[in-house]
Formats: sequence, C-alpha cells, structure tokens
Amino acid sequence: MSELRKDPVGDRWVIIASERSRRPNARVPAAMPDSTEPCPFCTGHERETPPEILAYRADSTAPNRPGWTVRVVPNKYPALAVGEGWPNRHDEPGDFMAGIGAHEVVIESPQHDVSMANLSVSQVADVLRAYRERMIVLQEEPHWQSVVIYKNEGSSAGATLEHVHSQILALPMVPRAIADEWRALKAHDEGYRRCLYCDIIKKERERQDRVVAESDAFVVLCPFASRFPYETWIMPKRHSPFFQSLGDNELRQLASALLQILKRLAAVADAPVNYVLHSGPLRKAKSERYHWHLETMPRISKIAGFELASGYYINTVTPEEAARALRQVEI
Amino acid sequence: MSELRKDPVGDRWVIIASERSRRPNARVPAAMPDSTEPCPFCTGHERETPPEILAYRADSTAPNRPGWTVRVVPNKYPALAVGEGWPNRHDEPGDFMAGIGAHEVVIESPQHDVSMANLSVSQVADVLRAYRERMIVLQEEPHWQSVVIYKNEGSSAGATLEHVHSQILALPMVPRAIADEWRALKAHDEGYRRCLYCDIIKKERERQDRVVAESDAFVVLCPFASRFPYETWIMPKRHSPFFQSLGDNELRQLASALLQILKRLAAVADAPVNYVLHSGPLRKAKSERYHWHLETMPRISKIAGFELASGYYINTVTPEEAARALRQVEI
Repeated sequence: MSELRKDPVGDRWVIIASERSRRPNARVPAAMPDSTEPCPFCTGHERETPPEILAYRADSTAPNRPGWTVRVVPNKYPALAVGEGWPNRHDEPGDFMAGIGAHEVVIESPQHDVSMANLSVSQVADVLRAYRERMIVLQEEPHWQSVVIYKNEGSSAGATLEHVHSQILALPMVPRAIADEWRALKAHDEGYRRCLYCDIIKKERERQDRVVAESDAFVVLCPFASRFPYETWIMPKRHSPFFQSLGDNELRQLASALLQILKRLAAVADAPVNYVLHSGPLRKAKSERYHWHLETMPRISKIAGFELASGYYINTVTPEEAARALRQVEI
Repeated sequence: MSELRKDPVGDRWVIIASERSRRPNARVPAAMPDSTEPCPFCTGHERETPPEILAYRADSTAPNRPGWTVRVVPNKYPALAVGEGWPNRHDEPGDFMAGIGAHEVVIESPQHDVSMANLSVSQVADVLRAYRERMIVLQEEPHWQSVVIYKNEGSSAGATLEHVHSQILALPMVPRAIADEWRALKAHDEGYRRCLYCDIIKKERERQDRVVAESDAFVVLCPFASRFPYETWIMPKRHSPFFQSLGDNELRQLASALLQILKRLAAVADAPVNYVLHSGPLRKAKSERYHWHLETMPRISKIAGFELASGYYINTVTPEEAARALRQVEI
C-alpha cells in the first residue's frame, strides 16, 4: 500500500508508491519498447490486465474479451488504491496518511495506436464518455475529494507504455493546482459576481490573438501566461464546474475540438504531450464557482532546475505566436 | 527583451523568453551533441562567451583568456536581463512586467568535464565561492527580490550544453517555492519561537533513518516527503537565512558534502541531476526566519500529467530506503 506524505514546510503532498517502481520501463528509457510486439493493452490480450471496470463493446461480446472500443481497467501498479491499514509511523516531521484512492487506466483503442491524434472523432468521443461515466461513479465515494484525469503520450511526457491510453486518479485531497484556481475563482466571484474564466473567455474572444479555434460550445486558446510552448486550453463557453455534467452534444464537440488541437500540435510541435482535465473539487462548498477545462501541454522543453527551484516556468514561444502558428495549420 | 506574465487564476509567474529558443539544442535532443568537439565553455574558447563577470584565475593571466579554474559569464540567451522598455500590452487578463533580472552561467571547470561528481573538492569549493561572491554583489541591486542558483546536469534534467556548469538567476519577485517555505517557517517561529528546519534537523539526527551523512556543519538527509527517488537535502546545522553568509570553513565542508552526495547518487541512481540552492528572500522583512539549504534531485522518473495536473508528486522509492542505499555506497 502506498503512503501520502506532506512536506512539513512546503505545502505539498507526495505519493510514496514503491510498487510503481516495478512497472515495466519505470526507469524511463531513451526510446519506447519495440512497438511491433503486441502489448497488454492490445485487443486479444485482455487477460494481461486486471479485469475491466468499464468497456464500450459490441453486443454479445463478453467482458475481458475482444470486441471493445474503449476499456477502463485498474492500474496494475497503482499510485493510490483502496485498502486497509495505516502507515506504521510515529513522531514524523510532516503529515501523512494511507495512500487511499483509485487509479484507473483508460485504454483508448483496441489497436496499438500510439497517438490519440490518429484516432477517429467517434473513438475520442468514446474516451471522453468513459471519463464522464467513471467520474460520475467515483464522485459517489465520499472519501474522494477530487478526480484528476490526464494523459502522458510519449516517453518524455512520462508514458511507460506506448499504446494510446490515459489515467484517472481519485484523490483523498484537492490537488494544490485545482485548489489554487478554485480560490482565485471564488475571490473573483465574491468581488464581482462573475466567473473569472468566463470573463477571460469573453476577453479572449474579443481580442482573437490567442484564440486557436472556436465552436458553438468551446473556445480553444493559448493562455496569457502559457507555461509551455504551444500550451492550449479547451474552455467550455457554458459556465460549469464539473466535466461530468457535460451533455452529449457538448461531449461530441469536445471530442472534435480535442482531436483538432492534437492534430494542430502534431503539425506544429511534433512533441510528446500531456493533457490534464481540470474539474471542480467534489466536496468543497461553493464548488459551483469552478469552471472546468482541459489543458494540453506539448513537452518541447524540459522541466529543469529553474522550474524546480521556483515553481515558475520559462517559455520560449509567446502565446500570441503559438496561437498564430496553430491557427495556420490546415486541418 | 523577455516578459514576465502572471496567470490570472493560478498564482504563477511565467518568463516568456522567445530569444532562448535560439539556443543550440533548445529543442532538447535525444542525446547530447558530440562531446569530443571543444565547446564554448572549454578553455581556449573564452571569446565564444560574453565577457566574464568573475573568474578565479592564475596571477598574471588576462581576463577572457586561459588560466582560470571557475568562470562566471552572462547567459548568452538570458531568460531575464537588465534592459529598458516595457511590454507593449494593454487590457490583458493577467499581470505582466518587463523581464528584468540577471542570468549568469557558472562554468565549473576549464576542461570539458560532464559531471560535477568528477571534479576535485577544491574545484567544487571554488564553484561555491563563485556563488557566494555573485550573490553578495547581486543582493546590492534593490530590484532583485531573490537569487536562485541551480544546476541542470544531463539532457533529461534540462541541460542544453554538456560542459559542467550551473546558472544564477536574480529575480524581481520571490519565487513561489521559496515564498511558501518562508511563510511556513515564519508561522512556526511565531508559534514556537523556533526554526522549523532546525527542529527537523534535530529530529532527523535523532532518528537517523533518513540521514545519509553528517559533518560538523552539515547534515545530508532524504527529506520526509521526497518528491523524487533519492532526493537529498544538504542542511546547514547553524541556522542562517542566507547562503551568502557562509563562512570559509563551512564552504569547504559544503563542497565536501556536495561532492560526496553527487558520488553517492552516481553510484546508486546514475541519472541526470538537478540541484537548487534555496536561500532567503533578499528584501522580505523577517527573512531571518528562513534557513538556507541545497536540494539535489536525480531525475529518474519523469514529471508527467499527474504532477502537472496536481502540483504534487509520485515517488517510487521511500526516503528511508533511499537513505539506506545512499549510506551504503563506499566513498
């Protein structure tokens, strides 16, 4: 069982998960393993993963057998898990707790595709539908304070398996990044009775210089203080704190916007990529002040000493230039 | 000239420094460039860097000529610089300011050594002496709020040049990581009239299970909530807010402790490495509550979606196990 430890000085939790060091390729290799070999995420190899939690599959196909389009399984090397026990510690300098939580893997294609940018829009929509369905289930568990969904695509972005997938983590605390946003949004709402992200969306749509694309329900933009070259955020125009309250029509539009931005990023940056879904804290009073969105970060530059020393970032491409380059890609 | 932008929601500054994208190897390559070629940091190539700010060199040798042991030069592609002007922006969603600051490179050896672990203890002491000397000069400039010193060694740790070096950044704000620590130390001092880091050092010396090494002036330990496998901190036993107030005897002991831990890390982890010097904010009232130290982070695992999503870390090696492995290395 893993352990959660809080630094006594920095306001920072760490998941100490020794079992994850047993993952294949946990010591990130220079290149990914040979992709011609079938992997445990490929169709026909369902028995090599823990039993599925959720799958979208053809009628009359059995669980943990071929016939699926998207499959959600428990992470075999979980950072957090449901379990008994309490860390056997006493008189420690910082807070700690048992590493309880849920850690799931969303296998995004039955084939050994390596990039989400190459999936069809209906396949991406199924992935997002799986996110929504799992979040609705996970939010019922009163221990979880937050659900974080993220993708690591490519070795430098932290992937240890090549087959296209993303991860869902249910956490017993609200991560700092989300709590920071939530506090700023709450303060703005108390001051102005408006959502700060709604205000930003309005302003960015007027300016246009950082807007990459737009549909009925979404604006895709390079944020004013982008941390990474070509960082882009997909922002829903409708104020809504929770990703899981997304309607079916919005979900299809999001799939289309996400696929489009991944294609644009592949054309401009051709780099490993992370995306993270920012959705509201599950239990915080006034969570309705939150405004969910999806942040995509190509990993062209490294997170180095300066970022670790300061918590700040150095970005070598202005968001205005990034938006211009991304807009010009012919899709 | 670069620009500083603050995210309107997250409490986070970003340095937008387009000129840095012109660095050689800025798009981090899979491997470092051929190391048999002499590089601009090698002795004999002094004219390929901007003129030196400081050098420790043999008597009767001229500036920007061979004969030095350690050399400090302005960064050719600075993230921040002294300059005129103000970003030509208006009606932006977040705060911004001109990217003023200082960005210097410490060339740690006249030879093309690639790892600080292979330098002599007197060479490492000269590097630390250069840090101290530059910090004493930089703190005189009233615009700088903080000086951050860090090393990126190896491509995955963010280095774009192989020749052993580190970097000094003077910043017009206190980085969040330092401000967080300072606030926690101040609160503890107000509550208990003691330094929290002094308390931690005392407790860790009693426990011993996370202590790697100890000398008269320093304790080397794996912190309770280590973010990275084999992360180690060198903590001065004497409470002092500022690295630059280090005495000559302490400086020699620090050089010895740093060299020893780099050798231990090379033996156990053999990974790219970052270290960062945490020194007190220059202008904050009550900076005396800070307790300077040096944090060393081997980069075995990647900073991936979870870390970007949450601001928290997953670490696969317990600090107790890390300390045990590091202690066992024969030096």
